[in-house]
This record gives sequence, structure tokens and C-alpha cells, in this order.
Amino acid sequence: MTPTVADPALLDLAGMIEALAAKKVSSVELTQACLDRIAAWQPVINAFIAIEPDEALTAAREADARLSDGAAKGLLDGVPFAHKDMFYAKGKISTCGSKIRRDWVADEDSTALLRLTETGAVRLGTLNMAEFAYGPTGHNVHFGDARNPWQPAHVTGGSSSGSGAAVAARLTPAALGSDTGGSVRMPANFCGVTGLKTTVGRVSRFGAMPLSQSLDTVGPLAKSARDCGLILGLMAGADPRDPTASDVAVPDYAAACDQDVRGMRLGVPSRFYTEDLDPETEAVYQAALDLFRQEGVEIVAIDLPDQAVLSAASQVLLAAEGAAFHRQWLRERPQDYGDQVRARLENGFAIPAVTYLESLRYRGIALAQHLEAVASIDAFLAPVSAKASPTLEESDVGGASGAEAVIQQITRFMRPINYLGLPALSVPSGFTQAGLPVGLQIVGRPFSEDVVLRLGAGFQRASDFHRQIPSLPGAPDE
Amino acid sequence: MTPTVADPALLDLAGMIEALAAKKVSSVELTQACLDRIAAWQPVINAFIAIEPDEALTAAREADARLSDGAAKGLLDGVPFAHKDMFYAKGKISTCGSKIRRDWVADEDSTALLRLTETGAVRLGTLNMAEFAYGPTGHNVHFGDARNPWQPAHVTGGSSSGSGAAVAARLTPAALGSDTGGSVRMPANFCGVTGLKTTVGRVSRFGAMPLSQSLDTVGPLAKSARDCGLILGLMAGADPRDPTASDVAVPDYAAACDQDVRGMRLGVPSRFYTEDLDPETEAVYQAALDLFRQEGVEIVAIDLPDQAVLSAASQVLLAAEGAAFHRQWLRERPQDYGDQVRARLENGFAIPAVTYLESLRYRGIALAQHLEAVASIDAFLAPVSAKASPTLEESDVGGASGAEAVIQQITRFMRPINYLGLPALSVPSGFTQAGLPVGLQIVGRPFSEDVVLRLGAGFQRASDFHRQIPSLPGAPDE
Repeated sequence: MTPTVADPALLDLAGMIEALAAKKVSSVELTQACLDRIAAWQPVINAFIAIEPDEALTAAREADARLSDGAAKGLLDGVPFAHKDMFYAKGKISTCGSKIRRDWVADEDSTALLRLTETGAVRLGTLNMAEFAYGPTGHNVHFGDARNPWQPAHVTGGSSSGSGAAVAARLTPAALGSDTGGSVRMPANFCGVTGLKTTVGRVSRFGAMPLSQSLDTVGPLAKSARDCGLILGLMAGADPRDPTASDVAVPDYAAACDQDVRGMRLGVPSRFYTEDLDPETEAVYQAALDLFRQEGVEIVAIDLPDQAVLSAASQVLLAAEGAAFHRQWLRERPQDYGDQVRARLENGFAIPAVTYLESLRYRGIALAQHLEAVASIDAFLAPVSAKASPTLEESDVGGASGAEAVIQQITRFMRPINYLGLPALSVPSGFTQAGLPVGLQIVGRPFSEDVVLRLGAGFQRASDFHRQIPSLPGAPDE
Repeated sequence: MTPTVADPALLDLAGMIEALAAKKVSSVELTQACLDRIAAWQPVINAFIAIEPDEALTAAREADARLSDGAAKGLLDGVPFAHKDMFYAKGKISTCGSKIRRDWVADEDSTALLRLTETGAVRLGTLNMAEFAYGPTGHNVHFGDARNPWQPAHVTGGSSSGSGAAVAARLTPAALGSDTGGSVRMPANFCGVTGLKTTVGRVSRFGAMPLSQSLDTVGPLAKSARDCGLILGLMAGADPRDPTASDVAVPDYAAACDQDVRGMRLGVPSRFYTEDLDPETEAVYQAALDLFRQEGVEIVAIDLPDQAVLSAASQVLLAAEGAAFHRQWLRERPQDYGDQVRARLENGFAIPAVTYLESLRYRGIALAQHLEAVASIDAFLAPVSAKASPTLEESDVGGASGAEAVIQQITRFMRPINYLGLPALSVPSGFTQAGLPVGLQIVGRPFSEDVVLRLGAGFQRASDFHRQIPSLPGAPDE
């Protein structure tokens, strides 16, 4: 087989599937191309916790054998990918970004992960993350901070820090992340890739490290909305091992992405999400609205209920449930946590059960109010954060004074959406003058991933922000 | 129509259905017979909060018309019954035993109640209960204490106090109650009637006053296990208005009651439930085991995990969830609660969310351990309380010193079963020398109401404790 693709690692997921099917590239070549890029980029961005070249190439060879026999296991047979190091794979270490689990070997398989590998996807390794997924920046005292491929002095966003960085640098066509308080959207936003926060219940959480049972969601980061749809289609749906995984029918997400967006209705919140934006973020937001208008999408002003209340309620749930999951380790080995994460977790001990239950109960009421406010639209558009990625230094809570204010600024558009359990797609939408990506989130109704993906795909057919690739510092532009 | 039944109010539910079908009695006669007994007994036992003779007789006349047209609405057409005053009926006051809701008119129908009235059951009125169902004795400062028909100086047990007293005195063939921490079994036990605590999720809780979403269950009190089965069969099953109501198939409970018990296996716990029993309760327990043996039931020693831990965990759930439901009233009008109930509810504010979540999470583990311990048996037999009904005075927490200890003694066999969500049938099993009833509980696996009812019916075919009727003080024996 003669490779006919220049750098096959630069293909998107759909492109890889196609090239493999057309035998323009082999899985070994694809995998090796990813491993080559990983070797070059890893010292700069620290995206991986564990790189597994031998196992990946073995899996790739097996995939090639199946493919040449015309016996593909499934859609992703031979396609390399990687995942946040909190999706358990039986017999493999899952550090969860922590010292406590540095050598912990999982004894069960994450359903989400298994549903990808069962279709033949080739694991390249495990991706960096905030310790126990509890941090919005990508700092990690145990495995080193992940760094933004566009400007390595800047954060990737977290907690799926390595997922954002690795997809942005084209080390993998796609990555599996999780979003409890913004952990898929934030790194997608800061790193300039497409990330889907799924509806609570859309993807099984069995075998994924828990942080907050009320808020945890599993979702893909990839080069495009359509690629996110391909992955979601494989993972979504009921799971006998997770009773909270919904049996709501799984639509054909890729087909949804191929539909025209003309005539769809996109909401612009009159408050909160459009307030106190950095001017560059504001400009990107307005330009995106113009682009949607050009594509025939109707832009509609909407008036959402108070989002700050939802944010507070979400933090109650997260803090209480996080502390409950960690209570034993916090009692027995508090010194093994990073200072930031321990402090965040310990906050949860102060929350009264009644406050927790109020926050849980209010969720249904708040969702009903929200659904009424968005009754006339397909989705609404909001920034992911009020400004582009800060530096590692200015957002280091243990270091810089004012870091907490920076964190607050970059996270405030996340939590209301987690609280309501809504799906939201973070889409690359522009760059700052300094060259940092700016993303926007398209937020839908529960279980309307097809709708937000369709809007995202429409946006991406008409723009090329998602096709931009960062340059390896010191290397010639690609 | 000539009545051929002496006092039709003394018939059991099945007997009433049969007598109506055979036209041996009319619904008006049945209803009037119940109303007559209510008039005689109410001043003594205070079982009712509201008696509704006019509406009951109107409903009875309508039922008679349907019955004479051969157009019965359903199984209970024309059969009188009553319910704890916490099952909402649209347009009717539901006091919940409280001052706060003394004049509150429900705007929705309880699913459990509606499923009975839709089959033609005739409401006699609403039954006394502990304030907001949060009390184990039957004391009520707002509507007066319910009193035990066997000895009116003694408590009925609570919180379904009026339900136990009214069925015992044959004011109604059956009553609807609820059990969160023993509230069906305790009054059944102290009043000498049959009461079924259902599996959590077996009966919809929509339109029933909530106390603890983790523990609340709806269940019948009646003159026999078979009557309880008839009622449960009408109420059980999924409900679109209550997502926690299970769609586990509803067996034919009456048919289960008619099956032989020979060869069934009944467990005797080696600890906890058999410790520190009053000698008379101990004797009743042993006699019941002998009776089961005579009926061909195999008695097997079992070793259950630590039940005290389960009890504590159940109290955490109840206190936290109760306080959360009541938080607004507790803040705005604490003075409108009775002292005991307010103190109980306020305890819940002190519970940390992490402790609450631990108690919730431990439930699955504890149930798995329990199911392993009972793997070889059909059900286990336990006392409902360690001794028979105390007096109102000695169990008045606001009055007698030592009352808390009495309460602890009578409630300790309840909460582990609520925590595990198990079904349990309280069956009249004997009397003390002083003439107070003693009950035993037959405790099954989740959703095995058919099994516990079958064992209870078998016991009742071989005994007549459930057929004993208390005498109206000052009246000749019946």
C-alpha cells in the first residue's frame, strides 16, 4: 500500500475513516503519524499522561489485517484516538490526574470507552486532566500542567486539558472528555477545537470516574461538529450498567450535521451571557451571529431566567457530591491531594443536606422555566468564556493574586448549563489578535444534540476556524 | 332488597365485594353501617379527621344504581373505605394532620387514592394521622390524639394512627396509609389489623404528601392479608406522574394469597430482631413460628448484617429530606408546628450534605449484602415492636420522662426495613394478657409483596387473631 496522504494525522475523523476504507492509508500509518506528532508536541504541551506506542501499533496492525480482509469491526476500525485518563479500561492504570490513583489499575471498562474500542478504534494513550477532573484550567501538580498548543504559556482549559490540547495539535483526531462544570467546553474553547457537552443521561457514565452524579457528562472533543456526532452516535444510549443512562432514541447525528440550517432559529440571550465580555470575544460573537444570518438562520432575542442562581445551585451540587465521593481519601490521606483540589473538595463538607436537597429540587423548576423561555428557538448562542485563555501564571490559584477572579471570569458561562443538564457544543469561532482561539457554545434542549450539532456543522461549512492548526514552536508552519 | 347480613360493617373487604355482587347488601346499607359505627366509636378513638356522611351516601346510592344495572365501575364499586388525610383529592381539604394545612385544598388527585375511587370505592372521610406523618405514636396536638380501640388509654401507633384504629374498630373495611419509618406497620401492629408496607416504588406517590422521597411508601391497612392484596393490586404499578413508580409487573396478589404455603422458607434472624423482646412478644413470636411450622413452612435461622447501621442511615435520610420539604414553613411559621414535630424536623438542618449522600450511597451496598443474607429464604419473620402499645401518657415526648426511650423501643425494628426499601406485612399474631394486640412482620425482597401476602394469608387461614374485634367501651361484646 502506498500512502497517498501527506500527513494523515491532519485528517479529521471522517477523513480517516474514508482514507482507511479507500486504502489510501493504513491504520499503522495513521497511528504512526499520530505517534510522530505526539513525540514532537508532548514536550511542549504535556497533553498525554501515558503514551502507548507499542500497544497502539499492535492494535493498528490487527485493524489493518481486518480491513484488508474486508472484516472491519466497526465504524472506527483502525482509527487512532485518545481519552482523558478517567475512563477505565480493565487492567490499565487510570490515574484520574491524581497522585492517589497514580498506580491504580481499573477492574472494569468504561461503557463509553468500550463502545469506541469495540468498533475498532485504536487507543494512543491517556490524556492529561485536572486532578480528579476538579479544575477549570489544566494545572496539574502531579503530572505537570497541560499547555495550550497555540501559546504554551497559556492554559488549555480544564478539566479535559489534554483532550483539548491533543486534538488542537492534531495528535489525535478526537478525544473523549467529561463535562461537569465546563470540562469539555472550556478546553475546546481555549484550544480551538469542537467539543460537545452532552445532555445528562445521554452517555453512560459507567466506568468513568465520578465527580458529581447530578452533573457528570461524557462527551467528545474533535476537529468538527460532524466528527463529534460520529463519536456520540457510537457512545449514546441506554446501558444496563448505568441506570441513569437514558433510553431516549439515538438519532443519526452525522445525518443531522449534513442537513441545511436555513430557517433554524438561534437565540441571543439579552442578559448574562452577553454581559461584560472582553471586546475581542464580543466581536467574535457578533461575527458569528452575522455568519449564521448569512446561512439563513433566524436570530431571535431571548430572555432567560436568572442564570446566577443556577450557577450557585450547580456549585452546591458539585461541591457536596464531590466531597461525598472523596470523603474517605480526604480523611485518610489529605496530603496526597494538590492544595487547590483539596481546598475545593473540602468546601463541600460545609454544605448542609437541606441546601443540597433544595438545589436538587429546584432543578426541575428551573428547567421548566428555561424550556418556556426557549420555546420558540432551536438553540441559543453564548460565549464559552468572557475572554480567551489566560496564562498559566495568572490563573494559578496557588500563586497569582487575582487568580480566583480570572477563574470566575472564565467559568461563569458554564455552570448554569450543567445545572440544567443541557447539551452544548463549543465551536471554534475566531482568534484574538494575539492568536488565541475563541469559541462559542450552541446550547440546546435536553437530548437535542442533533440540533446543536447541525447548527455547529452549518457554521463550520461556512467558516474555517476549526481547520486552523497551531505551529509547533520552533518548527516551520504546516 | 332485604339485607341478609347482620352487621355488614363487620364483613371484610372480600366479603363486602361478594355480598354486593350477590345483592345480599346494598352499598347504602354498607356505608350506613360503617357510618353508624363511626358515630359510636369516633368519640372514643378519634380515628377520623373528617367524616363525610352525605357525600358517602350519595356515592353509595350512585354505586347501587350502577350495581343494579350490572354496570359496576370496578372491583370496589360500592365498597366504603377511608384514607389517611394526606392523600390529596382535588377540591378537598387535606390537613396532613397539621395546623398549617388545616384549610388547604388539594388541587390534584393522589394516584393511589384515585385508582381506588375509580373502581367505585366510596370515601367515608379522612383519617387521623401524626402531624405531617412525622411521629410513631398517634399523638396529635392539632386534631387530638388517636386512641387504641382495644384500650383507649393506649396509643394506636403512627403515623397512620386513624387508619389502624378505624380498621380495628371496623369503621371501615380498609384504609390507605403510608410508611416512611413504620407508619403502616406500627398502627397495624398496635391495633391488631393487617398492614402492608410496600416496596419503595411499588405504588405511585404522586399526590401523597411527601416526607422523605427516599423512604416514603403507600400501603393498605385491612382486616386480612388477602384484602391488602386486593387493594394493592388496584394501586400498584407505573404512573406517568411519578417517575419513581416502578413498572415492575404487578402480580395477582389475591391469587398469591390463595396459594398454599407448604414448603416455603421463613427466616428467623439470629440477632437484632430477636433481642430484648418483651416476654409476651417473645411468646407470640415463638407461637407464630410453631404455627408456620404446622402449616409446612420451613423455619431457617438467618444472619443479617448489622441492622443498627441501617437504622441510623435511614434516620439521616428521613431527617434531611423531611427538613428540606418543610424548610420554608419552618422558617416562616415555626410556631404553627407542634413542638415535637418541629423539633424532629429541625434536627434535619444539622445534617451535612456529605453525610446525607453517604447514607444514600450506602443503600445499594447494604441492599446487596441483605439480599445475599436472605438468598435461601422467601421472607423473614420479625416482631414489629419489642412490646405492645404503650399508653398515650408514657409515650408523650413532650410529657413523660423516659418517653424517648419508649419510642426508641417501639420503633427500632422499623427503620432498617425502610432503609432497604423492602416490603413487609404486619400480621396480628396474638394478644397480651392485658388484651393488647401483638403483631409480627413478614419481610420480603423488593417487589415480593406477593410472597409476604401469601405467607400472611397462610398464617391467617390457620389463626383468628385478625378476626378479633374490640368492644366499644360501655357496650356489650359483639
